[in-house]
Amino acid sequence: MPGIVIAPRARLFHGHEWIYAGEIRKTFGDPQPGEVITLKDFRDRPLGSAIYNPHSLIVARRFSRRRQELDLDFFRRRIDRALQFRQRLALGDSPVRLVWSESDGLPGLIVDRYGNHLVVQALTLGMHQRLDLITEALVELLTPVSIILRNDSPVLKAEGLETEIRALHGSEPGAFEVTANGLIFEVDLIDGQKTGLYLDQLGSHAEVASMAKGLRVLDCFTNQGGFALACARAGAAKVTAVDISGPACEATRRNANRNGLDMEVVEHNVFDFLKHAEAEYDLIILDPPSFTRNKKSLNDAMRGYKEIHLRALKLLEKGGLLSTYCCSHHASREAFLDNLVSASVDAKKSLRLLTEHRQRGDHPILPALPETSYLKGFTVEVIPSI
Amino acid sequence: MPGIVIAPRARLFHGHEWIYAGEIRKTFGDPQPGEVITLKDFRDRPLGSAIYNPHSLIVARRFSRRRQELDLDFFRRRIDRALQFRQRLALGDSPVRLVWSESDGLPGLIVDRYGNHLVVQALTLGMHQRLDLITEALVELLTPVSIILRNDSPVLKAEGLETEIRALHGSEPGAFEVTANGLIFEVDLIDGQKTGLYLDQLGSHAEVASMAKGLRVLDCFTNQGGFALACARAGAAKVTAVDISGPACEATRRNANRNGLDMEVVEHNVFDFLKHAEAEYDLIILDPPSFTRNKKSLNDAMRGYKEIHLRALKLLEKGGLLSTYCCSHHASREAFLDNLVSASVDAKKSLRLLTEHRQRGDHPILPALPETSYLKGFTVEVIPSI
Repeated sequence: MPGIVIAPRARLFHGHEWIYAGEIRKTFGDPQPGEVITLKDFRDRPLGSAIYNPHSLIVARRFSRRRQELDLDFFRRRIDRALQFRQRLALGDSPVRLVWSESDGLPGLIVDRYGNHLVVQALTLGMHQRLDLITEALVELLTPVSIILRNDSPVLKAEGLETEIRALHGSEPGAFEVTANGLIFEVDLIDGQKTGLYLDQLGSHAEVASMAKGLRVLDCFTNQGGFALACARAGAAKVTAVDISGPACEATRRNANRNGLDMEVVEHNVFDFLKHAEAEYDLIILDPPSFTRNKKSLNDAMRGYKEIHLRALKLLEKGGLLSTYCCSHHASREAFLDNLVSASVDAKKSLRLLTEHRQRGDHPILPALPETSYLKGFTVEVIPSI
Repeated sequence: MPGIVIAPRARLFHGHEWIYAGEIRKTFGDPQPGEVITLKDFRDRPLGSAIYNPHSLIVARRFSRRRQELDLDFFRRRIDRALQFRQRLALGDSPVRLVWSESDGLPGLIVDRYGNHLVVQALTLGMHQRLDLITEALVELLTPVSIILRNDSPVLKAEGLETEIRALHGSEPGAFEVTANGLIFEVDLIDGQKTGLYLDQLGSHAEVASMAKGLRVLDCFTNQGGFALACARAGAAKVTAVDISGPACEATRRNANRNGLDMEVVEHNVFDFLKHAEAEYDLIILDPPSFTRNKKSLNDAMRGYKEIHLRALKLLEKGGLLSTYCCSHHASREAFLDNLVSASVDAKKSLRLLTEHRQRGDHPILPALPETSYLKGFTVEVIPSI
């Protein structure tokens, strides 16, 4: 088997599973892009098997500490293990992420289930080359009506892969309805803006809604209305949802109608909206898209968070609640919390932490791979200044 | 009102409420130890009211951004606000921390409720001098049968206060039973090793117990058996509790009998026990007392955590669970998690994070005062090496 010799001090020796170009001491046996390679340390001791892509910054991703081929049996076992873990989470018939990349020992492979339909993303060359095997394993284990390949993530480029949306199994299902948190959503796995819903936030929608009864709620960056709908269903006194995207606002309005819920949907830039809004909300939710996809733009991103934190806090009276989220791995939990504190000092508001939020359990975190922990959120209460 | 002028760049200007000796530019009006003082910035602008103790490293602790006396009405309002917050937590008739120092705007004052009895700690000179007012406010608001002053914390020394245990109201109640997590515990507010139970961990006991059904559980540093009893009650297949303290083991055995639960209680040093134990556990709990009370001994503490993490992980097979806690503010959440990862690399085990734990909600966190966030815990699962 071809392979690479890894330099001492590589992250692999500290529990990580990725090998960067700068961590390779030697390549042997002429490995081909996408191929399974063997990893060795500088004393020629084997360290396991990885998928190889010399065109990526992450040249190799280990998927086993043993010598292991990527055959049908392997995919069957790994996917089955992932399914068993989701069963323990008892998420009911909610749309669910069944396979999540490194966290399930399948680097770059993502599988979501919406009813009887599966949505696959193959974001590494190694997984993309083996879509036939993956499809076969999924059909065998789950007998879905259709499997859609929805490869349109911006990270594809780094792996040298093209955008691609097509049926891998069955036919394209068209738009259909799914139920999540007791709410009906329309999803379109082919033409939708993304693979249906933000599954990682479904837990947070329910957590925030549990505090929303009787409150006047402002949901910023509402997208398809996840937080707004959950709060309205939970008995919020009034719900306003804001998004800059016309199609997102339309989707939110349709979802509100579909569920017989009343809310105001405003197509507007959130920064401007918050600047000119009246202080008439008891609960403000900030769930922006990632302000940064890399370390370089982190300072700009933090300025963005600071600004929306400050503007939202200024709108809240004593007893008011703020739920704020950050979905970028590059902004650490601590930096994000510091940002919130800094805004509270500027806004002259004292905060008490009520709840800490995370990505839902179907996006499991491996502590040794910090990249698997990316979504953090805090619900704070404005308390009388102490 | 006497007071102090605070130097620029003091932590107070970044949201904190403490003033250290090195942050004082000038003292005026001859403030007396324990007195209420006014805080000013170097431009003579008022910054609020604080309690003063020149013998402490923390010379002043702000309790209001306005000019405010520590009178009966003040204590009544602040305590009432703290009570209202606990009501929202819906903790039932569980023993509860009703007032928690800075987090409730009462620096150094702690009030716990066990049934009809209250336990007070007055850990700052300012609060200690006003115990009469505090007692009056508590009697008025809560009509307790007794109020016990249980001032025996090691932090008293830093404030120049003496150890002191006595009834402030009513008479000493003797040992009695309370119910927490559906379990009966005996507490002794006068002679107990501490003020009854570790209230901050009651939430974690329930969270871990919810995973314990059918498992063989090892509870290390069991103290009065909180985790062990909750797991036994939840249907653990077998429970072993270890503590180095004879009285703690005796208390655990009595609590087990009281609840009709079967478990093995071993009086032993946990480090040694883990070293010689067989790999016959499915869930190991590590809830040690704080290994460090200051920054200086942090490295030693981290070595201690690393060692118990390593030994516990070596005992766990695939699928095994580890719940591990750190109650020292000085060891950050990130440092503690890194410590666990480092131990997992040495133990050649891959971990998946299942749950993150925190102090229960009756110990509220103020994000601007990092010291209010001290207890962190993680439950991880040993997964097949990926």
